[in-house]
Amino acid sequence: MEKIITLGELMLRLTPPDYAKIDQTRSFMANYGGAEANVAVSLAYLGHRCYFISKLPPTDVGDSAIKHLRSHNICTDYIARGSSLMGIYFYESGFGGRPSKVIYNRRHSAFTRIRTTEFDFDEIFKDATWFHVSGITLALGKSVREVTFECLKYCKKYHVPVSFDFNFRSKLWEIDEAREIYKKVVPYVDYLFASYWDANTMMEILPDNENASKEEKTINVMRKLINKYDISAVFMTDRTVYSATENSLKASYITKDNVYHTNDYHFQILDRIGAGDAFASGVIHCLIKDKSNLEHALDFGIVTCVLKHTISGDSSRLKEEDIYDYLKGCKGVVR
Amino acid sequence: MEKIITLGELMLRLTPPDYAKIDQTRSFMANYGGAEANVAVSLAYLGHRCYFISKLPPTDVGDSAIKHLRSHNICTDYIARGSSLMGIYFYESGFGGRPSKVIYNRRHSAFTRIRTTEFDFDEIFKDATWFHVSGITLALGKSVREVTFECLKYCKKYHVPVSFDFNFRSKLWEIDEAREIYKKVVPYVDYLFASYWDANTMMEILPDNENASKEEKTINVMRKLINKYDISAVFMTDRTVYSATENSLKASYITKDNVYHTNDYHFQILDRIGAGDAFASGVIHCLIKDKSNLEHALDFGIVTCVLKHTISGDSSRLKEEDIYDYLKGCKGVVR
Amino acid sequence: MEKIITLGELMLRLTPPDYAKIDQTRSFMANYGGAEANVAVSLAYLGHRCYFISKLPPTDVGDSAIKHLRSHNICTDYIARGSSLMGIYFYESGFGGRPSKVIYNRRHSAFTRIRTTEFDFDEIFKDATWFHVSGITLALGKSVREVTFECLKYCKKYHVPVSFDFNFRSKLWEIDEAREIYKKVVPYVDYLFASYWDANTMMEILPDNENASKEEKTINVMRKLINKYDISAVFMTDRTVYSATENSLKASYITKDNVYHTNDYHFQILDRIGAGDAFASGVIHCLIKDKSNLEHALDFGIVTCVLKHTISGDSSRLKEEDIYDYLKGCKGVVR
Amino acid sequence: MEKIITLGELMLRLTPPDYAKIDQTRSFMANYGGAEANVAVSLAYLGHRCYFISKLPPTDVGDSAIKHLRSHNICTDYIARGSSLMGIYFYESGFGGRPSKVIYNRRHSAFTRIRTTEFDFDEIFKDATWFHVSGITLALGKSVREVTFECLKYCKKYHVPVSFDFNFRSKLWEIDEAREIYKKVVPYVDYLFASYWDANTMMEILPDNENASKEEKTINVMRKLINKYDISAVFMTDRTVYSATENSLKASYITKDNVYHTNDYHFQILDRIGAGDAFASGVIHCLIKDKSNLEHALDFGIVTCVLKHTISGDSSRLKEEDIYDYLKGCKGVVR
Amino acid sequence: MEKIITLGELMLRLTPPDYAKIDQTRSFMANYGGAEANVAVSLAYLGHRCYFISKLPPTDVGDSAIKHLRSHNICTDYIARGSSLMGIYFYESGFGGRPSKVIYNRRHSAFTRIRTTEFDFDEIFKDATWFHVSGITLALGKSVREVTFECLKYCKKYHVPVSFDFNFRSKLWEIDEAREIYKKVVPYVDYLFASYWDANTMMEILPDNENASKEEKTINVMRKLINKYDISAVFMTDRTVYSATENSLKASYITKDNVYHTNDYHFQILDRIGAGDAFASGVIHCLIKDKSNLEHALDFGIVTCVLKHTISGDSSRLKEEDIYDYLKGCKGVVR
Amino acid sequence: MEKIITLGELMLRLTPPDYAKIDQTRSFMANYGGAEANVAVSLAYLGHRCYFISKLPPTDVGDSAIKHLRSHNICTDYIARGSSLMGIYFYESGFGGRPSKVIYNRRHSAFTRIRTTEFDFDEIFKDATWFHVSGITLALGKSVREVTFECLKYCKKYHVPVSFDFNFRSKLWEIDEAREIYKKVVPYVDYLFASYWDANTMMEILPDNENASKEEKTINVMRKLINKYDISAVFMTDRTVYSATENSLKASYITKDNVYHTNDYHFQILDRIGAGDAFASGVIHCLIKDKSNLEHALDFGIVTCVLKHTISGDSSRLKEEDIYDYLKGCKGVVR
Repeated sequence: MEKIITLGELMLRLTPPDYAKIDQTRSFMANYGGAEANVAVSLAYLGHRCYFISKLPPTDVGDSAIKHLRSHNICTDYIARGSSLMGIYFYESGFGGRPSKVIYNRRHSAFTRIRTTEFDFDEIFKDATWFHVSGITLALGKSVREVTFECLKYCKKYHVPVSFDFNFRSKLWEIDEAREIYKKVVPYVDYLFASYWDANTMMEILPDNENASKEEKTINVMRKLINKYDISAVFMTDRTVYSATENSLKASYITKDNVYHTNDYHFQILDRIGAGDAFASGVIHCLIKDKSNLEHALDFGIVTCVLKHTISGDSSRLKEEDIYDYLKGCKGVVR
Repeated sequence: MEKIITLGELMLRLTPPDYAKIDQTRSFMANYGGAEANVAVSLAYLGHRCYFISKLPPTDVGDSAIKHLRSHNICTDYIARGSSLMGIYFYESGFGGRPSKVIYNRRHSAFTRIRTTEFDFDEIFKDATWFHVSGITLALGKSVREVTFECLKYCKKYHVPVSFDFNFRSKLWEIDEAREIYKKVVPYVDYLFASYWDANTMMEILPDNENASKEEKTINVMRKLINKYDISAVFMTDRTVYSATENSLKASYITKDNVYHTNDYHFQILDRIGAGDAFASGVIHCLIKDKSNLEHALDFGIVTCVLKHTISGDSSRLKEEDIYDYLKGCKGVVR
Repeated sequence: MEKIITLGELMLRLTPPDYAKIDQTRSFMANYGGAEANVAVSLAYLGHRCYFISKLPPTDVGDSAIKHLRSHNICTDYIARGSSLMGIYFYESGFGGRPSKVIYNRRHSAFTRIRTTEFDFDEIFKDATWFHVSGITLALGKSVREVTFECLKYCKKYHVPVSFDFNFRSKLWEIDEAREIYKKVVPYVDYLFASYWDANTMMEILPDNENASKEEKTINVMRKLINKYDISAVFMTDRTVYSATENSLKASYITKDNVYHTNDYHFQILDRIGAGDAFASGVIHCLIKDKSNLEHALDFGIVTCVLKHTISGDSSRLKEEDIYDYLKGCKGVVR
Repeated sequence: MEKIITLGELMLRLTPPDYAKIDQTRSFMANYGGAEANVAVSLAYLGHRCYFISKLPPTDVGDSAIKHLRSHNICTDYIARGSSLMGIYFYESGFGGRPSKVIYNRRHSAFTRIRTTEFDFDEIFKDATWFHVSGITLALGKSVREVTFECLKYCKKYHVPVSFDFNFRSKLWEIDEAREIYKKVVPYVDYLFASYWDANTMMEILPDNENASKEEKTINVMRKLINKYDISAVFMTDRTVYSATENSLKASYITKDNVYHTNDYHFQILDRIGAGDAFASGVIHCLIKDKSNLEHALDFGIVTCVLKHTISGDSSRLKEEDIYDYLKGCKGVVR
Repeated sequence: MEKIITLGELMLRLTPPDYAKIDQTRSFMANYGGAEANVAVSLAYLGHRCYFISKLPPTDVGDSAIKHLRSHNICTDYIARGSSLMGIYFYESGFGGRPSKVIYNRRHSAFTRIRTTEFDFDEIFKDATWFHVSGITLALGKSVREVTFECLKYCKKYHVPVSFDFNFRSKLWEIDEAREIYKKVVPYVDYLFASYWDANTMMEILPDNENASKEEKTINVMRKLINKYDISAVFMTDRTVYSATENSLKASYITKDNVYHTNDYHFQILDRIGAGDAFASGVIHCLIKDKSNLEHALDFGIVTCVLKHTISGDSSRLKEEDIYDYLKGCKGVVR
Repeated sequence: MEKIITLGELMLRLTPPDYAKIDQTRSFMANYGGAEANVAVSLAYLGHRCYFISKLPPTDVGDSAIKHLRSHNICTDYIARGSSLMGIYFYESGFGGRPSKVIYNRRHSAFTRIRTTEFDFDEIFKDATWFHVSGITLALGKSVREVTFECLKYCKKYHVPVSFDFNFRSKLWEIDEAREIYKKVVPYVDYLFASYWDANTMMEILPDNENASKEEKTINVMRKLINKYDISAVFMTDRTVYSATENSLKASYITKDNVYHTNDYHFQILDRIGAGDAFASGVIHCLIKDKSNLEHALDFGIVTCVLKHTISGDSSRLKEEDIYDYLKGCKGVVR
């Protein structure tokens, strides 16, 4: 039976209602999210059985986070409990020319206290279908990284495909520290979600010709990365921000032999948190079903990402048919 | 004294707040609406005295629906009470590329148990000014249809003008069943709200030249309909859906001798439910005041429809001056 | 592994906020509940693995109900999907001298369309630990009853203990019809939740001495019932209603050899819906752990019931330690 | 046909939610109320046809007030429109030992600009069944008083029974001014709602024996008042305040020949505004049906008053059966 | 130490939530605002120490208004207390083609009862840095005007720079009355916020050539005004209204020697109230820091104004860095 | 001029609305509170000028906490900014037999990173009127304690009276660690808020006769404490918990020569957080005005405490007149 595994922190997100600024509000809407949890939830809506490795405080707040995952049918057996701090972030939703804001209140959280001894990795990975993790998890300290590398090693041991999203967050760690870690992770990875900047700055892969076009340099650099680390494919999105509530997005993939760009989608935004995770989930969904059709995976992924912006909360709740309806141009109410 | 009569079901609409999906919400906003009730309420705001024929369960929920109508000054003397189920529908408001959804919970409702013996049709129609009904009502089963035809017969008896909106809903009945009923209703009708598809599929009126333009075919088919059933005018709208929150609309009317198209209005949407009913109400309002100026009726109707999209709830709350201000281009705040 | 099974309808409960009357409100709080689902959820909080047999419409509303159960860790594999109507009930929360009101909008719901062919009863019951059902389920029509009796037969086949709560609802069926069915169900039952009235009116077991005290008659009648149908124990509660927000409760059990009464608990009410189900769940929890200590089961059950009144929603969310803390007299905030 | 008329101001009440203090809140719940409007609404729920004489500003806020009345089936034909200020009051709901607070923002309101020329008193009173007004209306200035006296004169002309509630508000006028006016009004009155203090201080009727018991003095003074002004009956309530959320109440009536006291009712409070008006409405309801049974009228009135405290908003929404159920001791939920 | 002074009314703003119309809502969001208070609050966020001269009723509602100012660090020592009416206005937020509405409930408010004897003007102005007032204050009656002129005289006495915003409101006074007052105020003013219409209609300054372009006439008229009254600079905005939720704005300044126009900014609107006040505050902020760079002041002012539209409530909450980020094109979320 | 100083952490409190459990809620009400901040706010409402020493993160969340204090007129000049974590606590409001719960999310917060180098203690204390701190602050780690002792030393230096509340929290530190610190603090203290348990367990002062009554032992132990450390008076409360929503309280003070007990107050609870801080503030208020009347201080303090339970949020908002009205028995609404 199918078993998709992701590893990461699940945080409580606190958002003022009605586009209020944080210093205006008297209440917060509560959601639970985190990059890899979002991928798991999104995949669950696309019909997969997902497992989430994490650690949460043994409190009612930690319980709430677990209930959230369970309601989305995520298996929560691999969530350790312990330590006292819930990772929290405040999100101020931007409007028009006023940008959104993220304020982290997550340092020293229970997840940063995760230990390899809390898990039976053989049991977790021996029959796994897929493993996904992102750079945010890597940024959360030494013991989180130990658990991550343990997961990656067991993926190798049991031939579990690995997807990895760079997701560099400058608020969480320094470039120098990140670079060192990213270089240790990529050798384990089969499918990469990464930008030109990631390849360039983090992996220190330089274009052969600095004067080439952005697109040529991206293909050049990604091909070098692909060859060096034996990556199956690199996926990336390209976002244009018109305002906090109006963006456009297109996506590309690059393999040894192919390059493909999707259309550019222009859209309005209800909640942009987790859009990148939705993209990853859409691509992974298709890869699990059929590794050979990357073009379809990319089209499916970018629409999952675009439509995620219309759903509040950190993760997509889209079913396969929602994506196909959109690809077919269906926009109406049928009564 | 003026007396406009409409016949239909009044349902409880349950809408998650803040563009939440139905499976996300912990509360629902409650409104009451239904195609013909919406027309009545909208006409009441335009200054008319309206009466609503219906049936509701004898519960506090039914009482709430009646209070809703009364607050809008609708006469509720012709609402029978009985049976136990309130017609309910869930409405998930779409956002951007995510379309809106309607989930009916209305089968077997009290209204479907309406009986001709519950009303004194002579008393209702003897001094009536206008009667309006739509295809939704016809879809709700045999005993609802009996009441409808009784109303139509009494309109004939007392020379009450009849307007009818096709409003075909595929979720409520089959095309074959609908076709048979529509054909029996149209002979009673003076003013029709219908699309080319309605004329073509339901009334089985085919264009003389299948290769003509859409507009030519529409005029051709509608003229045949008009002549066959002695219809005074057919009104229709043409909607373009850019997203769940952005549409455009234009309207046309066709008579024996004339065709007229309004401007195309591009607009943002707060709540699109009842927009078609608002269109009908705007047109009917003008017809009651002056049957000879159809062009003005159409312009008034389309603006009523466009502005309805900016009002939450199922019915327009626009006054005549709001429509005229918009037609005059007034958009500002005056303090 | 443990497997507790309950069978029943899961309804959407709509409650006006802030003690508003139904005809005052513009919004409803949404919960999901139903007698046997409440027992399952309550048992899940007490640490058990519960399965729920039911049928829900294949809509987002049905999905929401399932997510609700999953968040509480209920296994939802035995929920059939089909038919269009969600069972709904409106609940007007009373205050002081103004009593609460329940308005059912559940006739013809998907659950009433449940079919024995939709389930594999061998698979469901072969390793079951317990089965619970109540009279509300029996009231919902012929095909629901067929499924119920099928369950009861498989319990016999696999020696699964059965608990049954009379839960007669006069709004759902007539006494005569109920009497006939109850008499067919009780022979399958091991543990009964029933009142003197139930035994008297439904099972038609009369006291030997009409002039005896209420308590004597109850013991007399219940002993006759126990002997006739080989019941292990009968549990009952005795509620005094001071106002909609203030009640008191005590409980008793009667076996062949014993009678035991708990203390009388006086308490304030936040939400009384599901209190009886919480009582059953507390008793069943203890019976599963230790069938021999009925006194403890009853004390545990009545406190679960009393504390349920302080939790909004249809089911208890109490953990074992909450009950024991209360029994030990702990009432304070510890910071 | 029946036609009950009341005269008074309809104000917008602004209440912070959740027992917040006014200086804590960021939102206000909006209700519409006023002593005589409350009596009319309460009587409408008891099945009567009521008309309300008033004046409101010609704004959307005034419209909302009118919609509020219409939803309760009050006839709003006698409400003049004009002037700019809506009468507003802020209500801070007390809790336990913290008392409730009323802050008036009503000086110079539209109602204070009411004019006798705005009404056709013959048309209003020629077929009236009852007229009710209170001392609050009298306190609102000279032109309000002119309209009131005009009403009273037309009641005399058309033999319409008049009920009057002293309702003295020290925040609105001085005792000296009030005394003079009250003395001019009482000669027109048939049924009085008044306390010993009102009779003593306002009407300057002194007890024959200052040393008699409170009850003896009350009977003595009221009998003198009754004889002097030919009053049919005086009704009064006696409230004990244990806390903002817990009070008790009993009522008495005094006629030439009789005295009767109800039981003392102890109750919890959701919203005490309008309780006195509910008392008056309950009494008037019974008087209209049967003038001879004052005892029943008083029992009915005090229960209407007691139950009003359990309903939020300014007026009772109780039906006749709610009162009788309470009198019969019914307190439960029937499902 | 810096001391910016503004004079005006602080009103309670009541806004229906979620774009509801006033006649739909059951609750209002409460904010406090007023033209000159908004300028003070906005300047406080830009780092200034502001004092507000006003008068409020001695009630909890008045206290709330003061707490609001204090939370924004405004000095409230110069707010007199007395009289009973709080100035209130209702704001119906428009949507798309449906325009916003303001309904004043402010006549006879406490502020209109302000008296010169309530303030020690020497103490207030002797060390003041700046004084700002607008035409709304002037419209509020004779005694408000007396206080205003007293302020203006003390500004002269202590050489305090004065900025003035015409802010003519036709709902508050007649053009003829306004004209007379404006002409008396402008001689005291150093920096003017005024439109061509203000100069033309209020100050009765006519263009030399009626046939010149709008821009030429504006420059011509403003230069004449500048020369006549020795004004340092005139600032103005030019708004295009596409819909209630989408506008564009550009700004200009005119001095004896220079004219400068900003870019045209196109934007979406969350709350447009106070946008003009935000513009004034942005300009004044820069003038206080550097009177010589009017171009920068205007660019800063127009962005403050544009971004104010994205913040709910009556005043800007923007910090200097928010404005500079926007001017630099930063639009993204940085996590 | 008066200057009351308190030192402590200001936390964000997150409370589910409507008595929901933490694992039920989708939103949290946001308040700011902390023992010593509560004392300062409460004193500000009683008319004092208060200063608060603390440290908060330099984020919008920290800004919100400061705005909260400013709105209550607290001087925020002594609040350092730095470090990233906001101290947060979750509060689940109990109901009836279900107790309230506090879940701390405050470890490693910015306040625990406070440094003595961040403050100019001479400037702070040279003209101070009073200093208050509690044991919660002492529990928050070494560097917080350093700042606390620095404050205490400067109080000695400038002869500032010191009040101290034991406030031991077992969730924050161990008894052994606490005991050591408490013993170092008490020598600096003039007025103590402490229980028998505090004196006994923390200060290790044993009663001369273990068999004496609780009251005798308390007086005996406190007198020994008073004599040993030269304390002016010890204040204490004695709470009886009937349920989460119903408690009673009485208070006592003990000096060298006197003992006094207040009445026992029985009350309902809206929000019990901060009740002890309100007690301290009421006593301190009276001590500042008149050190000699301890009896009055205690009566005033216990009523402040009792009434705090009726106000939501962490601090009292009671004015002096509210306390006196309650002491005089006023409980009604005056309109």
